[in-house]
Amino acid sequence: MPNTKKRIAVPAQLRKLVHKRAKKTGAAPGTLIHSGEKKTERARIRVIDYDQDKLERREYDDASACCPLLETSTVSWINIDGLHQVEIIETIGRCFNLHPLVMEDILNTDQRPKVEAYDDYVFIVLKMLTFNEQTGETLPEQVSLILGRNFVLSFQEREGDVFEGVRERLRSGRRIRFMGADYLTYALLDAIVDSYLLTLEKISDQIELLEEELMERPTPQTLDRIHHFKREMILLRKSVWPLRELIGGLTRGEHPLVTQETILFLRDVYDHTIHVIDTVETFRDLLGGMTDLYLSSVSHRMNEVMKVLTLIATIFIPLTFIAGVYGMNFEYMPELQWRWGYPAVWAVMILVGILMVGFFKRKKWL
Amino acid sequence: MPNTKKRIAVPAQLRKLVHKRAKKTGAAPGTLIHSGEKKTERARIRVIDYDQDKLERREYDDASACCPLLETSTVSWINIDGLHQVEIIETIGRCFNLHPLVMEDILNTDQRPKVEAYDDYVFIVLKMLTFNEQTGETLPEQVSLILGRNFVLSFQEREGDVFEGVRERLRSGRRIRFMGADYLTYALLDAIVDSYLLTLEKISDQIELLEEELMERPTPQTLDRIHHFKREMILLRKSVWPLRELIGGLTRGEHPLVTQETILFLRDVYDHTIHVIDTVETFRDLLGGMTDLYLSSVSHRMNEVMKVLTLIATIFIPLTFIAGVYGMNFEYMPELQWRWGYPAVWAVMILVGILMVGFFKRKKWL
Amino acid sequence: MPNTKKRIAVPAQLRKLVHKRAKKTGAAPGTLIHSGEKKTERARIRVIDYDQDKLERREYDDASACCPLLETSTVSWINIDGLHQVEIIETIGRCFNLHPLVMEDILNTDQRPKVEAYDDYVFIVLKMLTFNEQTGETLPEQVSLILGRNFVLSFQEREGDVFEGVRERLRSGRRIRFMGADYLTYALLDAIVDSYLLTLEKISDQIELLEEELMERPTPQTLDRIHHFKREMILLRKSVWPLRELIGGLTRGEHPLVTQETILFLRDVYDHTIHVIDTVETFRDLLGGMTDLYLSSVSHRMNEVMKVLTLIATIFIPLTFIAGVYGMNFEYMPELQWRWGYPAVWAVMILVGILMVGFFKRKKWL
Amino acid sequence: MPNTKKRIAVPAQLRKLVHKRAKKTGAAPGTLIHSGEKKTERARIRVIDYDQDKLERREYDDASACCPLLETSTVSWINIDGLHQVEIIETIGRCFNLHPLVMEDILNTDQRPKVEAYDDYVFIVLKMLTFNEQTGETLPEQVSLILGRNFVLSFQEREGDVFEGVRERLRSGRRIRFMGADYLTYALLDAIVDSYLLTLEKISDQIELLEEELMERPTPQTLDRIHHFKREMILLRKSVWPLRELIGGLTRGEHPLVTQETILFLRDVYDHTIHVIDTVETFRDLLGGMTDLYLSSVSHRMNEVMKVLTLIATIFIPLTFIAGVYGMNFEYMPELQWRWGYPAVWAVMILVGILMVGFFKRKKWL
Amino acid sequence: MPNTKKRIAVPAQLRKLVHKRAKKTGAAPGTLIHSGEKKTERARIRVIDYDQDKLERREYDDASACCPLLETSTVSWINIDGLHQVEIIETIGRCFNLHPLVMEDILNTDQRPKVEAYDDYVFIVLKMLTFNEQTGETLPEQVSLILGRNFVLSFQEREGDVFEGVRERLRSGRRIRFMGADYLTYALLDAIVDSYLLTLEKISDQIELLEEELMERPTPQTLDRIHHFKREMILLRKSVWPLRELIGGLTRGEHPLVTQETILFLRDVYDHTIHVIDTVETFRDLLGGMTDLYLSSVSHRMNEVMKVLTLIATIFIPLTFIAGVYGMNFEYMPELQWRWGYPAVWAVMILVGILMVGFFKRKKWL
Repeated sequence: MPNTKKRIAVPAQLRKLVHKRAKKTGAAPGTLIHSGEKKTERARIRVIDYDQDKLERREYDDASACCPLLETSTVSWINIDGLHQVEIIETIGRCFNLHPLVMEDILNTDQRPKVEAYDDYVFIVLKMLTFNEQTGETLPEQVSLILGRNFVLSFQEREGDVFEGVRERLRSGRRIRFMGADYLTYALLDAIVDSYLLTLEKISDQIELLEEELMERPTPQTLDRIHHFKREMILLRKSVWPLRELIGGLTRGEHPLVTQETILFLRDVYDHTIHVIDTVETFRDLLGGMTDLYLSSVSHRMNEVMKVLTLIATIFIPLTFIAGVYGMNFEYMPELQWRWGYPAVWAVMILVGILMVGFFKRKKWL
Repeated sequence: MPNTKKRIAVPAQLRKLVHKRAKKTGAAPGTLIHSGEKKTERARIRVIDYDQDKLERREYDDASACCPLLETSTVSWINIDGLHQVEIIETIGRCFNLHPLVMEDILNTDQRPKVEAYDDYVFIVLKMLTFNEQTGETLPEQVSLILGRNFVLSFQEREGDVFEGVRERLRSGRRIRFMGADYLTYALLDAIVDSYLLTLEKISDQIELLEEELMERPTPQTLDRIHHFKREMILLRKSVWPLRELIGGLTRGEHPLVTQETILFLRDVYDHTIHVIDTVETFRDLLGGMTDLYLSSVSHRMNEVMKVLTLIATIFIPLTFIAGVYGMNFEYMPELQWRWGYPAVWAVMILVGILMVGFFKRKKWL
Repeated sequence: MPNTKKRIAVPAQLRKLVHKRAKKTGAAPGTLIHSGEKKTERARIRVIDYDQDKLERREYDDASACCPLLETSTVSWINIDGLHQVEIIETIGRCFNLHPLVMEDILNTDQRPKVEAYDDYVFIVLKMLTFNEQTGETLPEQVSLILGRNFVLSFQEREGDVFEGVRERLRSGRRIRFMGADYLTYALLDAIVDSYLLTLEKISDQIELLEEELMERPTPQTLDRIHHFKREMILLRKSVWPLRELIGGLTRGEHPLVTQETILFLRDVYDHTIHVIDTVETFRDLLGGMTDLYLSSVSHRMNEVMKVLTLIATIFIPLTFIAGVYGMNFEYMPELQWRWGYPAVWAVMILVGILMVGFFKRKKWL
Repeated sequence: MPNTKKRIAVPAQLRKLVHKRAKKTGAAPGTLIHSGEKKTERARIRVIDYDQDKLERREYDDASACCPLLETSTVSWINIDGLHQVEIIETIGRCFNLHPLVMEDILNTDQRPKVEAYDDYVFIVLKMLTFNEQTGETLPEQVSLILGRNFVLSFQEREGDVFEGVRERLRSGRRIRFMGADYLTYALLDAIVDSYLLTLEKISDQIELLEEELMERPTPQTLDRIHHFKREMILLRKSVWPLRELIGGLTRGEHPLVTQETILFLRDVYDHTIHVIDTVETFRDLLGGMTDLYLSSVSHRMNEVMKVLTLIATIFIPLTFIAGVYGMNFEYMPELQWRWGYPAVWAVMILVGILMVGFFKRKKWL
Repeated sequence: MPNTKKRIAVPAQLRKLVHKRAKKTGAAPGTLIHSGEKKTERARIRVIDYDQDKLERREYDDASACCPLLETSTVSWINIDGLHQVEIIETIGRCFNLHPLVMEDILNTDQRPKVEAYDDYVFIVLKMLTFNEQTGETLPEQVSLILGRNFVLSFQEREGDVFEGVRERLRSGRRIRFMGADYLTYALLDAIVDSYLLTLEKISDQIELLEEELMERPTPQTLDRIHHFKREMILLRKSVWPLRELIGGLTRGEHPLVTQETILFLRDVYDHTIHVIDTVETFRDLLGGMTDLYLSSVSHRMNEVMKVLTLIATIFIPLTFIAGVYGMNFEYMPELQWRWGYPAVWAVMILVGILMVGFFKRKKWL
């Protein structure tokens, strides 16, 4: 029971809906303040530098070591896990000539997903999803991507393994090694959108279980869980709807850094995004239908109970009345002296009972 | 009863809403993995090769046998039933120069309907519907069409007879024989959209039966069935809404492979598609109205029952009280000694009963 | 009561929502099959041939007799009532060079309203409405219009008098005689849209009666009738929404056969169409509000009844308890021997009753 | 109570929703039939003829006396109150070269608000609102404006004082006298939109009163009144939504008769119109919320009543049972002979009562 | 309790929804009448005049002292707190060549947020929000901004500290000092949009508390508070939706006074605005879900209570009947003489009670 309560507590997502934002209210733009919780011990800078022929993996402590990568002809993917060490972001920003607003947006983990084109790079910010099966909550985590001519910067709030597949493909030297930084960006976006699909799949499983529970043994907890998932869907929409515009924008070929070949692949991510949105909306509709069904099934059960109880009372009340009549103490009650009075009253009472049951049966009330 | 339960179990459609997709989450794009269930024993390759004068029907085991058809001047329709033999799709893809993403989309049976133009061909993916009258479920099955200059490839998940009419028309040498591959594509699309109309017709029959049931003898099963069809409509929308855009796009004449003459016919399919969408939305509205009517009719019946029962109780409770009074054992209760006390009490009780019934009648409560 | 049942039976409109369509599922396009019910005994071909100076009315048995009219300089209006004699449509189609799809659409009486421009003519298909005051149902009937350079073909499912006003105006030689075939088409469209207004006026009357009934004596039949009109509105929307686009399209001047002068008049029909749509939507909103009001008024009445009944029971139950106490047979119950015991108990019971009534009154429960 | 009934009777607005329209169904376009009720005794023609230097006010009986005004260089405002004297409209129409459809639209008081550009003039038709505080109804009245090069015609259904402010400003010789007919049109439109704001202000007052009533003493009449205002809002939307498009169209500078300077002022009217629409929608939302609150507060009160009543019954039923037990007439009931039997039973009954009350209190049911 | 009543009284926002507007209904445009309440004692004119090198702060009593600032090369920010001294606005308007309609809009504090471009300046009017934590109400206050070539005018209804951060940044000589009047306007807009975020954060806290209250101890006050926040959201939407268009318009680069560099920053404000709108809509959805949950949880509790009560009654009614039977006074009732009659009846009654409880338990009613 405390378990259930936990499951339906105010979700982490709601709690951070607008809070962190306010931390910097009133500050000048470009002031670098990290507005999320510190989610990892120490920021980690991992670099993968590759071209068709070779691939180098390095890990740095000092952000400024990344600066020379801007000049190399190889594609460099610099991944920063953890945003609380503001000086790292500042160093990176200076090396790669990032606009102060971009750096601010990276640090403010309460951004709406968006894509912004600057002269030398494209700035993409979006949410990655993790589904906590214990609490049934989806946890969004902000990911910022910066696509430059021959580099990709990616900023995550905490270390995660969602990009592990991309690293694997880089290592194994497949198509991704023959293509540029824009294809790498596509691969990262694809991995992120896949995290949505994975989350939705898990939610789908839970909704299925809920459907079965609803059919067989609906309890108030069922309704709480339906309500919980409805709320999750409301909050999820905030993350997924902007994605459509974001990735749609990238596929329209407005960004010179994104090649025609990569756009074909981005169209595929776009399809997945639409699929995610469709699914979220479908889940909302399904959960809406489930609420209605729950309420009417509960009310139906309740009605049945009350009907049966009321029927029992209704049958016995007239019988009690008859018994009451012959419990009266009048001196002159001829029936009381009759030899067969008592059995006759029993007969009458049984008859009345049978008639009433019959009447209720005919009316289909019983 | 178990029957009913079956009918309202979590539908196959919901179960596969997002599952299959995830099978390949994290894989590189272009990795060919079949993400549906294996729905047929062995893939079957059927070729119809025709022009105005002659028509040849062949069946191949080896996909590479189809490759020469790309070069012929006749129109070739290559129909593949069954997607689990990935190597067949791979061979076909290589022969007809299909883009890796296209081949991936064909195998992934969880695509959103869409049309994509490539240099040499148009790739169309959409859903075909079958209505299972036993379970009242609509089963979507993915169909991929590739329209090339003089060939049409069609990929189905399992053998079906929805294209049988097209084959018949090809055999009988009508107009379809005089026109190109684009007209054949139109004919296939038309057959698929007709499968929607057929499905909706059957659902319409069932909704009609439900309406009658609702009017005459509403049971909780009626509501479950209304809910079932509502959910079917929610899931159906996911398949039909994208169709509008898909076929609308084909009629706008953006694809050089689609001739002006065929566009006239595609406009007709477009009308049918709008008709399908309208009908799905109308069914949703109708089912929504039916739910409301069910709930208010059930609550009305319940209220009537409770009112009658409560009335009976209300009439007898004061009478029982009167009987109770004269069941008291006070020594000095003058009424008890009266000669006509007992009949008088009866008279009073009957009078009270009549007055109450009269009062309730006047108030229109009875 | 059987009367009421009739009124709320599954409406004819629903029954034909998708049925007829399916009759030709799978057939090749251009196959001429009449997909409606046979609504008239024999098709009737009526021709009015006119210019400024003269007007001729003829009636033909043989459709081919109309063919020469294509060549004349006068405006010819050929009206066909009844679509089951497919050969008539075929003959007309051949004479006037109609596209096979047009002929198919004329015969298939399940078309969505639309306008299609062909090289030599404009094809318009829409619904005419009749309101059956007995059953409260609106019956749509399909009308196809073909506007050529100097002719208008009109196809109706059955003889009706909605075009009678147009015939009258032609006879009386007013403006309509001085203008071309496009103005005649306008006049026919105007007559059809007027049939919507007439229908809505009648429905408005019935909704008004329902409002009054709702205020004064709501019965379950009231709700059934509200539901009935809601459903009628849902089905009516399918007919009227496409009209907006249809007539809006005609007024945009894209069709060379429609002159600027006529467009002014069509704008007027367009206004009426918007008026019809607005009214249908307003009716839906009003009916929605009426349902809510009905349900809350019924539940209010029910609550009042239950409250009064429960109050009566609540007052008598404690009194019955008191009577029960003094009905006990203990040997040592001093009250029973008291001289004024009996009157005292009556006094107590009356007091308890008065106190309870007073308490309920103060609480505003009575 | 009959008062209340009056207030919630079918409103005048609904009654004329589609009726008048039908009067001319089937008539040829341009047939001049007045389709509203006769709202004033005699039509009144008032002319104000002005330029910067002088202003003349005249009143005519004969419409043809206005005709010379077309030629003068001064700005002439011809205001006609009352539409039932069709010959006046006809004369005016002939003098000012109005299109037959315009004259028809002026007379048909069931027009949807719209603006139509003709070669020499702009025709505007819209609704003016009056709020009847007695009945709580808004009464729309149709106003037609015709803006010519140097004249403005205004047609009202009845005399009203909404234009009095404009007359006053003309008299007092302010800016309005220095500007053309388009500015006068703006002033009239502004006065009309102000009549909406005035109406909404009054409705706002009433909604405020309703809110307070809802909080303190909700009665079924409260719900009827909420429903009444909801319906008023539904009907009001029909008048105000088209205004947005209408005035928006005038500000886009498509009409040569409307100068750039006046457009600045029309933008202001446009803002007011948006404000009106926003307010109507906000009122709808507020009223929707109030209905929900009413229903849940009523059901809460009802539940409380039923709970208390049921609790009373539940406490006394077991006690009555105990009394019943010792009312049995068995010969061998040892308790009956006990010296302290009777007090003991009382003690038991009091104890049971206290325990039950305590149990209910602990459960928070009492 | 009176506390609660206060909290849910008709909010200040509703009260001023349309009232103030009407004060000037019928007046000529450009008539300067202040239509808000007098919110501050004396208007206060504060000027900050700055360029890169120096910054001067002045406070004037006489508005005309500001006039020379139009000519200087420095950027001047003139902030007027308090609008009731119309002559100040008039003087300012004359000096800075403001259009009469602009001055009217500044004074009328019931404007819809909008941006209007004039030749020499851009006029922006929008709402600033304050959240009163005592009453849970959001109080909108109108702010008008005029952006000229080298000056910014800002008009507030009352002194507030929302612009204090901007003053601080000006003083401390940061980037804002190096940029023009358009950047200052951006800084002010940013401060205003931040006031929305702050308000939403506080509302978010309260909604969170409500959620917890709803889970643990729902009371009718919970529902009133949910309803209160729903209404706040309805009224808030009126302020925030127009913001999207307003700031979106500024970022599209249509105003020559807004430089490309500033547009980058305005895009950031635009993102915040979208965030605000998303959050308001999300709150609406969440509150909608909470209402449903409240209603169903209350009805569930109620049902449980009624079920238990009815069960108790149902168990005792048959037992009372049995007792009643043996309370009858028939002479020939053999059971009464039986030695074990009395214990047997008890046994029967206990058995019946146990059977009924068992039956109810098996049915899961208890």
